[in-house]
Amino acid sequence: MTQPPHLDRLDAFLVELNRASGEVILPLFRVENGLEDKGGPGAFDPVTAADRGAEAAIRLLISEHYPEHGVIGEEYGEDRPNAEFVWVLDPIDGTRAFIAGLPVWTTLIGLRFQGAPVLGSIGQPYIGEVFLGHAGGSRLIHATGSRPLATRKGTPLGQAIVATTDPVATFNAAELDAWARVRAATRLVRFGCDAYAYAMVAAGSLDMVVEAGLKSWDIEAAIPVIVGAGGVLSNWSGQPMGRQGGAAVMAGDQALLESVLPLLLPLAAQAKPV
Amino acid sequence: MTQPPHLDRLDAFLVELNRASGEVILPLFRVENGLEDKGGPGAFDPVTAADRGAEAAIRLLISEHYPEHGVIGEEYGEDRPNAEFVWVLDPIDGTRAFIAGLPVWTTLIGLRFQGAPVLGSIGQPYIGEVFLGHAGGSRLIHATGSRPLATRKGTPLGQAIVATTDPVATFNAAELDAWARVRAATRLVRFGCDAYAYAMVAAGSLDMVVEAGLKSWDIEAAIPVIVGAGGVLSNWSGQPMGRQGGAAVMAGDQALLESVLPLLLPLAAQAKPV
Repeated sequence: MTQPPHLDRLDAFLVELNRASGEVILPLFRVENGLEDKGGPGAFDPVTAADRGAEAAIRLLISEHYPEHGVIGEEYGEDRPNAEFVWVLDPIDGTRAFIAGLPVWTTLIGLRFQGAPVLGSIGQPYIGEVFLGHAGGSRLIHATGSRPLATRKGTPLGQAIVATTDPVATFNAAELDAWARVRAATRLVRFGCDAYAYAMVAAGSLDMVVEAGLKSWDIEAAIPVIVGAGGVLSNWSGQPMGRQGGAAVMAGDQALLESVLPLLLPLAAQAKPV
Repeated sequence: MTQPPHLDRLDAFLVELNRASGEVILPLFRVENGLEDKGGPGAFDPVTAADRGAEAAIRLLISEHYPEHGVIGEEYGEDRPNAEFVWVLDPIDGTRAFIAGLPVWTTLIGLRFQGAPVLGSIGQPYIGEVFLGHAGGSRLIHATGSRPLATRKGTPLGQAIVATTDPVATFNAAELDAWARVRAATRLVRFGCDAYAYAMVAAGSLDMVVEAGLKSWDIEAAIPVIVGAGGVLSNWSGQPMGRQGGAAVMAGDQALLESVLPLLLPLAAQAKPV
Protein backbone atom coordinates (compact mmCIF):
# COMPACT_ATOMS: atom_id res chain seq x y z
CA MET A 1 0.00 0.00 0.00
CA THR A 2 1.07 3.57 -0.70
CA GLN A 3 1.58 5.57 2.48
CA PRO A 4 0.00 9.02 2.42
CA PRO A 5 1.48 12.01 4.29
CA HIS A 6 0.28 12.64 7.85
CA LEU A 7 -0.94 9.06 8.26
CA ASP A 8 -0.88 9.27 12.07
CA ARG A 9 -3.18 12.27 12.02
CA LEU A 10 -5.55 10.58 9.54
CA ASP A 11 -5.53 7.41 11.67
CA ALA A 12 -6.61 9.39 14.74
CA PHE A 13 -9.23 11.23 12.68
CA LEU A 14 -10.66 7.91 11.51
CA VAL A 15 -11.12 6.83 15.15
CA GLU A 16 -12.95 10.13 15.74
CA LEU A 17 -15.20 9.52 12.70
CA ASN A 18 -16.14 6.11 14.13
CA ARG A 19 -17.00 7.68 17.49
CA ALA A 20 -19.20 10.33 15.87
CA SER A 21 -20.97 7.78 13.67
CA GLY A 22 -21.66 5.43 16.59
CA GLU A 23 -23.21 8.25 18.60
CA VAL A 24 -25.81 8.74 15.87
CA ILE A 25 -26.48 5.07 15.18
CA LEU A 26 -26.69 3.50 18.65
CA PRO A 27 -29.87 5.26 19.86
CA LEU A 28 -31.56 3.85 16.73
CA PHE A 29 -30.33 0.25 17.10
CA ARG A 30 -32.96 -2.16 18.48
CA VAL A 31 -35.69 0.46 18.44
CA GLU A 32 -38.38 -2.20 18.37
CA ASN A 33 -42.03 -2.73 18.91
CA GLY A 34 -43.90 -0.47 16.59
CA LEU A 35 -41.26 2.02 15.58
CA GLU A 36 -40.04 -0.09 12.70
CA ASP A 37 -41.29 0.66 9.21
CA LYS A 38 -44.03 -1.81 8.38
CA GLY A 39 -43.98 -0.73 4.76
CA GLY A 40 -46.42 2.14 4.95
CA PRO A 41 -45.50 5.30 3.05
CA GLY A 42 -43.61 7.80 5.17
CA ALA A 43 -43.34 5.40 8.11
CA PHE A 44 -40.29 5.81 10.36
CA ASP A 45 -37.44 3.51 9.33
CA PRO A 46 -34.71 3.41 12.02
CA VAL A 47 -32.01 1.82 9.86
CA THR A 48 -32.35 4.43 7.11
CA ALA A 49 -32.50 7.23 9.67
CA ALA A 50 -29.36 5.86 11.35
CA ASP A 51 -27.53 5.40 8.05
CA ARG A 52 -28.33 8.91 6.83
CA GLY A 53 -27.72 10.58 10.18
CA ALA A 54 -24.35 8.89 10.62
CA GLU A 55 -23.22 9.70 7.07
CA ALA A 56 -24.19 13.35 7.63
CA ALA A 57 -22.22 13.44 10.90
CA ILE A 58 -19.13 11.93 9.23
CA ARG A 59 -19.37 14.31 6.25
CA LEU A 60 -19.66 17.29 8.58
CA LEU A 61 -16.46 16.35 10.43
CA ILE A 62 -14.60 15.80 7.15
CA SER A 63 -15.75 19.15 5.78
CA GLU A 64 -14.59 20.87 8.99
CA HIS A 65 -11.17 19.21 9.21
CA TYR A 66 -10.33 18.40 5.59
CA PRO A 67 -12.49 20.59 3.33
CA GLU A 68 -10.34 19.71 0.31
CA HIS A 69 -10.99 15.94 0.64
CA GLY A 70 -13.57 14.15 -1.51
CA VAL A 71 -16.38 12.01 -0.09
CA ILE A 72 -18.35 9.13 -1.60
CA GLY A 73 -21.25 7.71 0.38
CA GLU A 74 -24.23 5.49 -0.27
CA GLU A 75 -26.74 8.00 1.09
CA TYR A 76 -25.48 11.43 -0.03
CA GLY A 77 -23.60 10.67 -3.24
CA GLU A 78 -20.24 12.02 -4.41
CA ASP A 79 -18.38 15.23 -3.55
CA ARG A 80 -15.00 15.82 -5.29
CA PRO A 81 -14.60 12.10 -6.18
CA ASN A 82 -11.32 12.87 -7.99
CA ALA A 83 -9.62 14.68 -5.12
CA GLU A 84 -6.21 13.44 -3.95
CA PHE A 85 -7.87 12.14 -0.76
CA VAL A 86 -11.36 10.63 -1.00
CA TRP A 87 -13.34 9.10 1.90
CA VAL A 88 -15.66 6.19 1.06
CA LEU A 89 -18.47 5.63 3.57
CA ASP A 90 -21.08 3.07 4.51
CA PRO A 91 -22.26 3.84 8.04
CA ILE A 92 -24.36 0.66 8.27
CA ASP A 93 -23.07 -2.28 6.27
CA GLY A 94 -25.28 -5.24 7.05
CA THR A 95 -28.66 -3.52 7.24
CA ARG A 96 -30.41 -6.89 7.48
CA ALA A 97 -28.41 -7.80 10.61
CA PHE A 98 -29.17 -4.32 11.99
CA ILE A 99 -32.91 -4.77 11.39
CA ALA A 100 -32.79 -8.17 13.14
CA GLY A 101 -31.03 -6.68 16.19
CA LEU A 102 -27.84 -8.69 15.60
CA PRO A 103 -24.66 -6.74 16.45
CA VAL A 104 -22.69 -7.87 13.40
CA TRP A 105 -23.50 -4.86 11.20
CA THR A 106 -20.54 -2.54 10.83
CA THR A 107 -19.57 1.02 9.98
CA LEU A 108 -17.20 1.08 6.99
CA ILE A 109 -14.97 4.11 6.43
CA GLY A 110 -12.14 4.01 3.90
CA LEU A 111 -9.69 6.59 2.59
CA ARG A 112 -8.27 6.68 -0.94
CA PHE A 113 -4.99 8.50 -1.60
CA GLN A 114 -4.22 9.14 -5.26
CA GLY A 115 -6.83 6.57 -6.23
CA ALA A 116 -5.69 3.68 -3.99
CA PRO A 117 -7.22 2.50 -0.66
CA VAL A 118 -4.63 3.38 2.01
CA LEU A 119 -6.55 3.54 5.30
CA GLY A 120 -9.76 1.92 6.45
CA SER A 121 -11.86 0.83 9.40
CA ILE A 122 -14.56 -1.70 10.21
CA GLY A 123 -16.36 -0.47 13.31
CA GLN A 124 -18.99 -2.14 15.52
CA PRO A 125 -20.03 0.55 17.99
CA TYR A 126 -22.58 -1.55 19.92
CA ILE A 127 -19.83 -4.02 20.86
CA GLY A 128 -17.33 -1.15 21.06
CA GLU A 129 -14.84 -2.35 18.45
CA VAL A 130 -12.97 -0.58 15.64
CA PHE A 131 -10.78 -2.74 13.39
CA LEU A 132 -8.44 -0.21 11.72
CA GLY A 133 -5.66 -0.76 9.19
CA HIS A 134 -3.09 0.82 6.87
CA ALA A 135 0.36 -0.01 5.50
CA GLY A 136 1.81 0.36 9.00
CA GLY A 137 -0.35 -2.50 10.31
CA SER A 138 -3.84 -3.21 11.56
CA ARG A 139 -5.20 -3.15 15.10
CA LEU A 140 -8.40 -3.71 17.07
CA ILE A 141 -9.33 -0.70 19.17
CA HIS A 142 -11.71 -1.54 22.03
CA ALA A 143 -12.96 0.08 25.21
CA THR A 144 -9.81 -0.49 27.23
CA GLY A 145 -7.03 -0.22 24.63
CA SER A 146 -5.96 -1.87 21.40
CA ARG A 147 -4.15 -4.93 20.10
CA PRO A 148 -2.44 -5.73 16.80
CA LEU A 149 -4.33 -7.78 14.21
CA ALA A 150 -2.72 -10.61 12.24
CA THR A 151 -4.37 -13.05 9.86
CA ARG A 152 -3.98 -16.78 10.47
CA LYS A 153 -1.31 -18.32 8.21
CA GLY A 154 -0.74 -21.82 6.95
CA THR A 155 -4.30 -23.12 7.18
CA PRO A 156 -4.86 -25.81 4.54
CA LEU A 157 -8.13 -25.53 2.59
CA GLY A 158 -9.59 -28.58 4.32
CA GLN A 159 -9.13 -26.92 7.74
CA ALA A 160 -10.33 -23.47 6.71
CA ILE A 161 -13.21 -21.63 8.42
CA VAL A 162 -15.07 -19.68 5.74
CA ALA A 163 -17.80 -17.03 5.82
CA THR A 164 -20.26 -15.71 3.28
CA THR A 165 -23.28 -13.50 3.85
CA ASP A 166 -26.25 -15.16 2.16
CA PRO A 167 -25.68 -17.39 -0.90
CA VAL A 168 -29.39 -17.88 -1.62
CA ALA A 169 -30.04 -14.13 -1.69
CA THR A 170 -26.86 -12.86 -3.38
CA PHE A 171 -25.36 -15.61 -5.59
CA ASN A 172 -26.43 -16.53 -9.13
CA ALA A 173 -26.63 -20.20 -10.18
CA ALA A 174 -22.95 -20.52 -11.16
CA GLU A 175 -21.91 -18.76 -7.94
CA LEU A 176 -24.11 -21.12 -5.90
CA ASP A 177 -22.37 -24.09 -7.54
CA ALA A 178 -19.00 -22.56 -6.69
CA TRP A 179 -20.11 -21.96 -3.10
CA ALA A 180 -21.25 -25.59 -2.77
CA ARG A 181 -17.75 -26.69 -3.83
CA VAL A 182 -16.14 -24.35 -1.28
CA ARG A 183 -18.43 -25.58 1.48
CA ALA A 184 -17.65 -29.22 0.68
CA ALA A 185 -13.89 -28.57 0.63
CA THR A 186 -13.58 -26.63 3.91
CA ARG A 187 -14.00 -27.30 7.63
CA LEU A 188 -16.71 -24.89 8.74
CA VAL A 189 -18.86 -22.17 7.17
CA ARG A 190 -20.59 -19.20 8.78
CA PHE A 191 -23.30 -16.94 7.34
CA GLY A 192 -24.78 -13.50 7.64
CA CYS A 193 -21.90 -11.41 8.95
CA ASP A 194 -21.23 -9.04 6.02
CA ALA A 195 -18.11 -6.96 6.72
CA TYR A 196 -17.82 -8.19 10.31
CA ALA A 197 -16.48 -11.37 8.72
CA TYR A 198 -13.75 -9.32 6.96
CA ALA A 199 -12.68 -8.08 10.38
CA MET A 200 -12.51 -11.68 11.61
CA VAL A 201 -10.16 -12.55 8.71
CA ALA A 202 -7.93 -9.65 9.79
CA ALA A 203 -8.15 -10.90 13.39
CA GLY A 204 -7.13 -14.44 12.43
CA SER A 205 -10.38 -16.04 13.62
CA LEU A 206 -11.77 -16.72 10.15
CA ASP A 207 -9.53 -18.01 7.37
CA MET A 208 -11.51 -16.83 4.38
CA VAL A 209 -14.53 -14.86 3.14
CA VAL A 210 -16.22 -15.46 -0.21
CA GLU A 211 -18.70 -12.85 -1.47
CA ALA A 212 -20.27 -11.71 -4.73
CA GLY A 213 -22.10 -8.59 -5.84
CA LEU A 214 -20.18 -6.21 -3.57
CA LYS A 215 -20.37 -2.46 -4.07
CA SER A 216 -17.29 -0.25 -3.81
CA TRP A 217 -18.29 0.93 -0.32
CA ASP A 218 -18.80 -2.68 0.80
CA ILE A 219 -15.14 -3.55 0.31
CA GLU A 220 -12.93 -0.47 -0.02
CA ALA A 221 -12.67 0.27 3.71
CA ALA A 222 -11.83 -3.37 4.43
CA ILE A 223 -8.91 -3.67 2.02
CA PRO A 224 -6.37 -1.80 4.22
CA VAL A 225 -7.57 -3.67 7.33
CA ILE A 226 -7.05 -7.09 5.72
CA VAL A 227 -3.80 -6.21 3.92
CA GLY A 228 -2.42 -4.40 6.98
CA ALA A 229 -3.02 -7.60 9.00
CA GLY A 230 -1.09 -9.70 6.47
CA GLY A 231 -4.07 -10.99 4.49
CA VAL A 232 -4.75 -11.07 0.77
CA LEU A 233 -7.75 -10.56 -1.46
CA SER A 234 -8.68 -10.89 -5.11
CA ASN A 235 -11.71 -11.31 -7.30
CA TRP A 236 -12.89 -14.87 -8.07
CA SER A 237 -10.53 -15.06 -11.07
CA GLY A 238 -7.50 -14.24 -8.92
CA GLN A 239 -7.17 -10.71 -10.31
CA PRO A 240 -6.43 -7.81 -7.97
CA MET A 241 -9.48 -6.58 -6.09
CA GLY A 242 -9.85 -2.96 -7.02
CA ARG A 243 -12.25 -0.42 -5.67
CA GLN A 244 -14.95 -1.44 -8.12
CA GLY A 245 -16.42 -4.16 -5.90
CA GLY A 246 -17.93 -7.28 -7.49
CA ALA A 247 -17.06 -10.85 -6.47
CA ALA A 248 -14.34 -11.12 -3.84
CA VAL A 249 -12.35 -13.67 -1.90
CA MET A 250 -10.27 -12.70 1.14
CA ALA A 251 -7.85 -15.06 2.86
CA GLY A 252 -5.30 -15.21 5.63
CA ASP A 253 -2.48 -15.99 3.22
CA GLN A 254 -1.70 -16.35 -0.48
CA ALA A 255 -1.49 -20.16 -0.41
CA LEU A 256 -5.04 -20.48 0.90
CA LEU A 257 -6.32 -17.93 -1.62
CA GLU A 258 -4.71 -19.84 -4.48
CA SER A 259 -6.08 -23.18 -3.26
CA VAL A 260 -9.68 -21.93 -3.32
CA LEU A 261 -9.62 -20.11 -6.67
CA PRO A 262 -10.03 -23.26 -8.81
CA LEU A 263 -13.28 -24.00 -6.91
CA LEU A 264 -14.64 -20.52 -7.63
CA LEU A 265 -14.31 -20.60 -11.39
CA PRO A 266 -17.39 -21.76 -13.32
CA LEU A 267 -17.39 -25.46 -14.14
CA ALA A 268 -16.92 -24.75 -17.84
CA ALA A 269 -13.79 -22.72 -17.19
CA GLN A 270 -12.34 -25.50 -15.01
CA ALA A 271 -12.37 -28.12 -17.78
CA LYS A 272 -8.99 -27.67 -19.44
CA PRO A 273 -8.57 -28.51 -23.14
CA VAL A 274 -6.67 -31.76 -23.63
CA MET B 1 -44.70 -20.41 34.70
CA THR B 2 -44.59 -21.65 38.28
CA GLN B 3 -42.86 -19.23 40.60
CA PRO B 4 -40.35 -20.84 42.96
CA PRO B 5 -39.64 -19.49 46.46
CA HIS B 6 -36.80 -16.97 46.84
CA LEU B 7 -36.93 -16.01 43.16
CA ASP B 8 -35.18 -12.67 43.78
CA ARG B 9 -32.23 -14.41 45.38
CA LEU B 10 -32.04 -16.98 42.58
CA ASP B 11 -32.23 -14.19 39.98
CA ALA B 12 -29.24 -12.42 41.57
CA PHE B 13 -27.38 -15.72 41.82
CA LEU B 14 -27.94 -16.34 38.10
CA VAL B 15 -26.32 -12.97 37.30
CA GLU B 16 -23.37 -14.05 39.47
CA LEU B 17 -23.12 -17.39 37.61
CA ASN B 18 -22.95 -15.49 34.31
CA ARG B 19 -20.16 -13.29 35.65
CA ALA B 20 -18.13 -16.27 36.85
CA SER B 21 -18.61 -18.13 33.57
CA GLY B 22 -17.57 -15.13 31.48
CA GLU B 23 -14.37 -14.71 33.48
CA VAL B 24 -13.32 -18.22 32.49
CA ILE B 25 -14.40 -18.02 28.85
CA LEU B 26 -13.25 -14.57 27.72
CA PRO B 27 -9.47 -15.16 27.97
CA LEU B 28 -9.99 -18.14 25.64
CA PHE B 29 -12.15 -16.33 23.04
CA ARG B 30 -10.25 -15.37 19.86
CA VAL B 31 -7.09 -17.15 20.95
CA GLU B 32 -5.90 -17.41 17.37
CA ASN B 33 -2.85 -18.11 15.30
CA GLY B 34 -1.53 -21.47 16.23
CA LEU B 35 -3.23 -22.10 19.54
CA GLU B 36 -6.26 -23.65 17.94
CA ASP B 37 -6.47 -27.41 17.69
CA LYS B 38 -5.50 -28.44 14.18
CA GLY B 39 -6.71 -31.96 14.82
CA GLY B 40 -3.59 -33.48 16.35
CA PRO B 41 -4.15 -35.74 19.35
CA GLY B 42 -3.89 -33.86 22.64
CA ALA B 43 -3.63 -30.48 20.91
CA PHE B 44 -4.98 -27.50 22.84
CA ASP B 45 -8.60 -26.74 21.97
CA PRO B 46 -9.70 -23.34 23.37
CA VAL B 47 -13.45 -23.82 22.96
CA THR B 48 -13.46 -27.13 24.82
CA ALA B 49 -11.19 -25.70 27.52
CA ALA B 50 -13.49 -22.69 27.88
CA ASP B 51 -16.65 -24.83 27.93
CA ARG B 52 -15.26 -27.20 30.59
CA GLY B 53 -13.66 -24.47 32.68
CA ALA B 54 -16.82 -22.39 32.74
CA GLU B 55 -19.05 -25.37 33.60
CA ALA B 56 -16.70 -26.26 36.45
CA ALA B 57 -16.79 -22.66 37.76
CA ILE B 58 -20.60 -22.59 37.63
CA ARG B 59 -20.90 -26.00 39.34
CA LEU B 60 -18.53 -24.89 42.10
CA LEU B 61 -20.65 -21.83 42.89
CA ILE B 62 -23.86 -23.89 42.89
CA SER B 63 -22.32 -26.49 45.23
CA GLU B 64 -21.19 -23.70 47.60
CA HIS B 65 -24.49 -21.79 47.67
CA TYR B 66 -27.09 -24.47 46.96
CA PRO B 67 -25.55 -27.88 47.71
CA GLU B 68 -28.99 -29.53 47.58
CA HIS B 69 -29.68 -28.39 43.98
CA GLY B 70 -29.18 -30.74 41.02
CA VAL B 71 -27.02 -29.88 38.00
CA ILE B 72 -27.15 -31.12 34.40
CA GLY B 73 -24.38 -30.00 32.04
CA GLU B 74 -23.05 -31.04 28.67
CA GLU B 75 -19.48 -31.46 29.91
CA TYR B 76 -19.79 -32.97 33.40
CA GLY B 77 -23.05 -34.92 33.23
CA GLU B 78 -25.82 -35.13 35.83
CA ASP B 79 -25.80 -34.60 39.60
CA ARG B 80 -29.11 -35.06 41.46
CA PRO B 81 -31.20 -34.66 38.25
CA ASN B 82 -34.42 -35.29 40.23
CA ALA B 83 -33.84 -32.65 42.91
CA GLU B 84 -36.54 -30.01 43.46
CA PHE B 85 -34.22 -27.42 41.89
CA VAL B 86 -32.03 -28.46 38.94
CA TRP B 87 -29.66 -26.18 36.98
CA VAL B 88 -29.20 -26.95 33.28
CA LEU B 89 -25.96 -25.58 31.79
CA ASP B 90 -24.36 -24.96 28.43
CA PRO B 91 -21.51 -22.47 28.95
CA ILE B 92 -20.84 -22.13 25.20
CA ASP B 93 -23.86 -22.59 22.97
CA GLY B 94 -22.76 -21.86 19.41
CA THR B 95 -19.29 -23.40 19.46
CA ARG B 96 -18.97 -22.86 15.70
CA ALA B 97 -19.53 -19.11 16.10
CA PHE B 98 -17.03 -19.15 18.99
CA ILE B 99 -14.42 -20.89 16.86
CA ALA B 100 -14.95 -18.35 14.05
CA GLY B 101 -14.48 -15.42 16.48
CA LEU B 102 -18.08 -14.22 16.06
CA PRO B 103 -19.59 -12.87 19.30
CA VAL B 104 -22.98 -14.54 18.88
CA TRP B 105 -22.22 -17.64 20.98
CA THR B 106 -23.97 -17.57 24.34
CA THR B 107 -23.86 -18.97 27.83
CA LEU B 108 -27.11 -20.78 28.66
CA ILE B 109 -28.09 -21.33 32.29
CA GLY B 110 -31.56 -22.51 33.22
CA LEU B 111 -33.23 -23.51 36.46
CA ARG B 112 -35.96 -26.17 36.84
CA PHE B 113 -38.27 -26.07 39.84
CA GLN B 114 -40.32 -29.21 40.39
CA GLY B 115 -39.54 -30.28 36.83
CA ALA B 116 -40.53 -27.07 35.02
CA PRO B 117 -38.20 -24.35 33.62
CA VAL B 118 -38.79 -21.27 35.83
CA LEU B 119 -35.68 -19.10 35.44
CA GLY B 120 -33.11 -18.79 32.69
CA SER B 121 -30.48 -16.62 31.08
CA ILE B 122 -28.82 -16.18 27.69
CA GLY B 123 -25.50 -14.43 28.29
CA GLN B 124 -22.96 -12.95 25.85
CA PRO B 125 -20.03 -11.90 28.02
CA TYR B 126 -17.84 -10.51 25.20
CA ILE B 127 -20.56 -7.97 24.34
CA GLY B 128 -21.48 -7.71 28.02
CA GLU B 129 -25.11 -8.78 27.82
CA VAL B 130 -27.27 -11.09 29.96
CA PHE B 131 -30.86 -11.67 28.79
CA LEU B 132 -32.60 -13.02 31.91
CA GLY B 133 -36.19 -14.09 32.41
CA HIS B 134 -38.77 -15.66 34.74
CA ALA B 135 -42.52 -15.41 35.42
CA GLY B 136 -41.98 -11.87 36.74
CA GLY B 137 -40.68 -10.69 33.38
CA SER B 138 -37.51 -10.64 31.29
CA ARG B 139 -34.79 -8.02 31.08
CA LEU B 140 -31.49 -7.27 29.36
CA ILE B 141 -28.69 -6.61 31.84
CA HIS B 142 -25.77 -4.69 30.30
CA ALA B 143 -22.72 -2.78 31.50
CA THR B 144 -24.59 0.33 32.61
CA GLY B 145 -27.94 -1.05 33.81
CA SER B 146 -30.86 -3.07 32.53
CA ARG B 147 -34.02 -2.67 30.49
CA PRO B 148 -37.21 -4.75 30.21
CA LEU B 149 -37.57 -7.16 27.28
CA ALA B 150 -40.79 -7.52 25.29
CA THR B 151 -41.41 -9.54 22.15
CA ARG B 152 -42.80 -7.80 19.07
CA LYS B 153 -46.55 -8.40 18.67
CA GLY B 154 -48.85 -8.33 15.69
CA THR B 155 -46.31 -9.04 12.95
CA PRO B 156 -48.02 -10.83 10.07
CA LEU B 157 -46.13 -13.83 8.65
CA GLY B 158 -45.25 -11.97 5.46
CA GLN B 159 -43.49 -9.23 7.48
CA ALA B 160 -41.72 -11.56 9.92
CA ILE B 161 -37.94 -11.61 10.43
CA VAL B 162 -36.92 -15.22 11.07
CA ALA B 163 -33.69 -16.89 12.19
CA THR B 164 -32.34 -20.41 12.01
CA THR B 165 -28.83 -21.65 12.66
CA ASP B 166 -27.76 -23.75 9.69
CA PRO B 167 -30.40 -25.62 7.68
CA VAL B 168 -27.87 -27.46 5.50
CA ALA B 169 -26.03 -28.81 8.53
CA THR B 170 -28.91 -29.52 10.91
CA PHE B 171 -32.12 -30.17 8.93
CA ASN B 172 -33.18 -33.43 7.28
CA ALA B 173 -34.81 -33.40 3.83
CA ALA B 174 -38.37 -32.83 5.09
CA GLU B 175 -37.14 -30.11 7.45
CA LEU B 176 -35.28 -28.43 4.57
CA ASP B 177 -38.51 -28.41 2.55
CA ALA B 178 -40.33 -26.87 5.50
CA TRP B 179 -37.60 -24.25 5.91
CA ALA B 180 -37.83 -23.33 2.20
CA ARG B 181 -41.57 -22.70 2.68
CA VAL B 182 -40.90 -20.51 5.73
CA ARG B 183 -38.22 -18.54 3.89
CA ALA B 184 -40.53 -17.95 0.93
CA ALA B 185 -43.39 -16.81 3.18
CA THR B 186 -41.47 -14.34 5.37
CA ARG B 187 -39.71 -11.01 4.95
CA LEU B 188 -36.11 -11.68 5.99
CA VAL B 189 -34.09 -14.63 7.29
CA ARG B 190 -30.87 -14.67 9.33
CA PHE B 191 -28.49 -17.56 9.97
CA GLY B 192 -25.87 -18.80 12.39
CA CYS B 193 -26.91 -17.20 15.65
CA ASP B 194 -27.92 -20.21 17.77
CA ALA B 195 -29.40 -19.06 21.08
CA TYR B 196 -28.46 -15.42 20.48
CA ALA B 197 -31.43 -15.45 18.10
CA TYR B 198 -33.70 -16.60 20.96
CA ALA B 199 -32.59 -13.52 22.89
CA MET B 200 -33.49 -11.34 19.89
CA VAL B 201 -37.02 -12.81 19.88
CA ALA B 202 -37.31 -11.86 23.57
CA ALA B 203 -35.97 -8.40 22.73
CA GLY B 204 -38.52 -7.88 19.93
CA SER B 205 -35.89 -7.56 17.17
CA LEU B 206 -36.58 -10.94 15.60
CA ASP B 207 -40.11 -12.22 15.18
CA MET B 208 -39.40 -15.93 15.05
CA VAL B 209 -36.80 -18.69 15.33
CA VAL B 210 -37.14 -22.11 13.69
CA GLU B 211 -34.72 -24.87 14.77
CA ALA B 212 -34.50 -28.65 14.76
CA GLY B 213 -32.37 -31.19 16.60
CA LEU B 214 -32.08 -29.16 19.79
CA LYS B 215 -30.78 -30.73 22.98
CA SER B 216 -32.38 -30.02 26.36
CA TRP B 217 -29.56 -27.61 27.32
CA ASP B 218 -29.96 -25.76 23.98
CA ILE B 219 -33.48 -24.63 24.81
CA GLU B 220 -34.33 -25.02 28.49
CA ALA B 221 -32.59 -21.81 29.64
CA ALA B 222 -34.26 -19.83 26.86
CA ILE B 223 -37.84 -20.81 27.67
CA PRO B 224 -38.25 -18.48 30.69
CA VAL B 225 -36.54 -15.63 28.78
CA ILE B 226 -38.94 -15.88 25.84
CA VAL B 227 -42.07 -16.54 27.89
CA GLY B 228 -41.15 -13.83 30.42
CA ALA B 229 -40.92 -11.36 27.51
CA GLY B 230 -44.40 -12.30 26.27
CA GLY B 231 -43.33 -14.78 23.57
CA VAL B 232 -44.48 -18.31 22.85
CA LEU B 233 -42.84 -21.52 21.73
CA SER B 234 -43.84 -25.00 20.65
CA ASN B 235 -42.51 -27.92 18.70
CA TRP B 236 -43.18 -28.04 14.93
CA SER B 237 -46.51 -29.78 15.53
CA GLY B 238 -47.72 -27.01 17.84
CA GLN B 239 -47.33 -29.12 20.97
CA PRO B 240 -45.83 -27.58 24.12
CA MET B 241 -42.06 -27.40 24.04
CA GLY B 242 -40.86 -29.39 26.99
CA ARG B 243 -37.37 -29.77 28.30
CA GLN B 244 -36.64 -32.64 25.93
CA GLY B 245 -35.41 -30.45 23.05
CA GLY B 246 -36.06 -31.50 19.46
CA ALA B 247 -37.61 -29.28 16.79
CA ALA B 248 -38.73 -25.87 18.03
CA VAL B 249 -40.40 -22.71 16.85
CA MET B 250 -40.38 -19.52 18.96
CA ALA B 251 -42.44 -16.46 18.11
CA GLY B 252 -43.34 -13.03 19.40
CA ASP B 253 -47.01 -13.92 19.73
CA GLN B 254 -49.44 -16.80 19.39
CA ALA B 255 -50.96 -15.59 16.10
CA LEU B 256 -47.58 -15.63 14.36
CA LEU B 257 -46.75 -19.05 15.80
CA GLU B 258 -50.04 -20.46 14.55
CA SER B 259 -49.57 -18.95 11.09
CA VAL B 260 -46.21 -20.66 10.56
CA LEU B 261 -47.12 -24.12 11.89
CA PRO B 262 -48.88 -25.29 8.68
CA LEU B 263 -45.64 -24.58 6.77
CA LEU B 264 -43.58 -26.69 9.17
CA LEU B 265 -45.57 -29.91 8.86
CA PRO B 266 -44.28 -32.45 6.33
CA LEU B 267 -45.87 -32.17 2.89
CA ALA B 268 -47.70 -35.47 3.33
CA ALA B 269 -49.34 -34.25 6.52
CA GLN B 270 -50.46 -31.04 4.84
CA ALA B 271 -52.46 -32.75 2.10
CA LYS B 272 -55.90 -33.02 3.65
CA PRO B 273 -58.21 -35.86 2.59
CA VAL B 274 -61.01 -34.63 0.33
